[in-house]
Amino acid sequence: MTLPTPGFSFEVATEDGRARGARLTTPRAVIDTPAFMPVGTHASVKGLTPSEVDATGARMILANTYHLWVRPGAELIDRQGGVCRFMGWPHALLTDSGGYQVYSLADRRKIDDDGVTFRSHLDGKKMRLTPETAMDVQRHLGSDVAMVLDECPPGGADRPVVERAMRRTTAWAERCLATTPATGQARFGIVQGGGYVDLRMTHLQTIAEMPFDGVALGGFSVGEPVAQMHELVGELGAAMPRDRPRYLMGVGTPEDLLSAIGSGIDLFDCVLPTRNGRNGQAFTSRGRVNIRQARHRDDSSPLDSDCTCPVCRTYSRAYLRHLFASGEMLGPRLLSLHNLHFYADLTRQARSAIESARYESWAREVTKRLREGDERQR
Amino acid sequence: MTLPTPGFSFEVATEDGRARGARLTTPRAVIDTPAFMPVGTHASVKGLTPSEVDATGARMILANTYHLWVRPGAELIDRQGGVCRFMGWPHALLTDSGGYQVYSLADRRKIDDDGVTFRSHLDGKKMRLTPETAMDVQRHLGSDVAMVLDECPPGGADRPVVERAMRRTTAWAERCLATTPATGQARFGIVQGGGYVDLRMTHLQTIAEMPFDGVALGGFSVGEPVAQMHELVGELGAAMPRDRPRYLMGVGTPEDLLSAIGSGIDLFDCVLPTRNGRNGQAFTSRGRVNIRQARHRDDSSPLDSDCTCPVCRTYSRAYLRHLFASGEMLGPRLLSLHNLHFYADLTRQARSAIESARYESWAREVTKRLREGDERQR
Repeated sequence: MTLPTPGFSFEVATEDGRARGARLTTPRAVIDTPAFMPVGTHASVKGLTPSEVDATGARMILANTYHLWVRPGAELIDRQGGVCRFMGWPHALLTDSGGYQVYSLADRRKIDDDGVTFRSHLDGKKMRLTPETAMDVQRHLGSDVAMVLDECPPGGADRPVVERAMRRTTAWAERCLATTPATGQARFGIVQGGGYVDLRMTHLQTIAEMPFDGVALGGFSVGEPVAQMHELVGELGAAMPRDRPRYLMGVGTPEDLLSAIGSGIDLFDCVLPTRNGRNGQAFTSRGRVNIRQARHRDDSSPLDSDCTCPVCRTYSRAYLRHLFASGEMLGPRLLSLHNLHFYADLTRQARSAIESARYESWAREVTKRLREGDERQR
Repeated sequence: MTLPTPGFSFEVATEDGRARGARLTTPRAVIDTPAFMPVGTHASVKGLTPSEVDATGARMILANTYHLWVRPGAELIDRQGGVCRFMGWPHALLTDSGGYQVYSLADRRKIDDDGVTFRSHLDGKKMRLTPETAMDVQRHLGSDVAMVLDECPPGGADRPVVERAMRRTTAWAERCLATTPATGQARFGIVQGGGYVDLRMTHLQTIAEMPFDGVALGGFSVGEPVAQMHELVGELGAAMPRDRPRYLMGVGTPEDLLSAIGSGIDLFDCVLPTRNGRNGQAFTSRGRVNIRQARHRDDSSPLDSDCTCPVCRTYSRAYLRHLFASGEMLGPRLLSLHNLHFYADLTRQARSAIESARYESWAREVTKRLREGDERQR
């Protein structure tokens, strides 16, 4: 069915319990879900070319509005044809609102009901982010999906702080929707509410009633226990609109994805596969592998014998370990690439398990294998 | 015609003045010359995959014996099938003798007539490099071409110092030849003699009389004036054996290559295209471009509009500059790739100019354009 923004549609093709396989169509791409969006903070998925990211199967990536706004600037990117053209990415793009990064500037920012005043981490320049500027900057960036400006309270925040953040997020969502949308740019609302299930459910209802093209869950993976997140996402997933894409922001590990897919989530983004890859950690079908460990020194087997990615087809653990030991930048590049393939494969396998109505048992088995593998690696 | 080592042959196909187009065949590759060998110090051409290096047209790369000997170790690489298999490089490999790196350890090494004692730059471990160990380590590395251990005196060394280094290099060359060669591994001799033309000519004659598969000029680009190197290589080129490959070690800029090709040199290696690429300097048909400069900020044109490499076909100067400004590792990767394409293209164009008997005028014109471009960039 069509979404509120012209050019966008969303169809749920198959369901298995609460898990679902769907298709999100944007003017630039067709995204089969569940789908993981690689993170390209500065209009670059770290170390990789767009064609390498493309080859993993990813069809939507995420770029960070705050970072691109402060450098090289939204107007420059607009003149260069938008982020996708600037970086040569041939598919869809989602941009965050910039809020999350601004809040992490800690003592360099001040939030009020109208927006956030902050100093750039680059040159200390005073800047102002409001719901309207967040949408304006994202309009310049030319993403397929723009996120509303929300207030994300710190993990473990007291109830009154969370309630104030919810109220602001609601008011700002309305202001974002009141701006003139860019052609071919959808808008997703964001649900806050911290770790309080009643606040979360109330806020979900508020956001779901607004004419957004998708609904996102914000403020997860901010330090709360993993089991609490899985449980809360489980409750929320059951109550999220069925006819629009559901996006769990900034999450997570392979196990987190499997749990959330089982709760009905469609879209994910996270820095883990690229960040951990840069640091020498590979995600494999048998758990995490730290390639720097001495045990891999003379090991001619691939990172993951079940993986068909170019890294696993070409290089041994011995060589990958050597690259990290020698500080060769090919190492971070290859592990990032493998990890993105792993995440993409995981979501494809999830889709396949949903289609054959065996998601729950499949996910339980995979999660068990991943956890046992992690333990053996220690 | 066949070279002394079975499986190797060398044919001069075309000559134009002293410049020549030839073909070196090794058990692993066919190398059309003039050819530039990208440097893969630690069994990795920095930032690039073997298939990317392959796509530039390079058919022989260089790896550094010293670095691989101290980490991960020659025996480990041998167990992993040799450097080519270890790193996944499908063509030929040349290894240096390790001497050059050991000499650069300065106060950590001591040279005598039998060899060099030094301490590893990694763990301070005392090690001993002799002509025999240099050949043994290279045998483990499994290169197509092994270089003899030579003594390379510092640039500007006094005549007696240079003479002693020559004598040692000659004696060591004989000892290298006396070792049992590995199957499918050729050996190149090295000519020393510093900046003294008479010493150089005498030593060339000595080395050329030995049954090496190729003759290399060592000890250039060690701080001497560029014009002096060009002149001396000119004299030496005229006297080098016609029927064997001629290799100018560690040189150089595009202008250096054009001058040396005109003097009859066939093979080159240098860190410039990859090292300068990592630092933001691109070699283009109109001189060097420093992509970090503000002038490229909003420039949607490619690095080099005459270049057909994947970088120039895909990315703008504005984007490449942004990658460097943001510290994104894709920037060093892409500029290294472009620069290797530029060097490979340059040698291919040189070959073509030789074949159509217009090398001198072509090289003069290209050199002029490169120099004028460099001046405009300042």
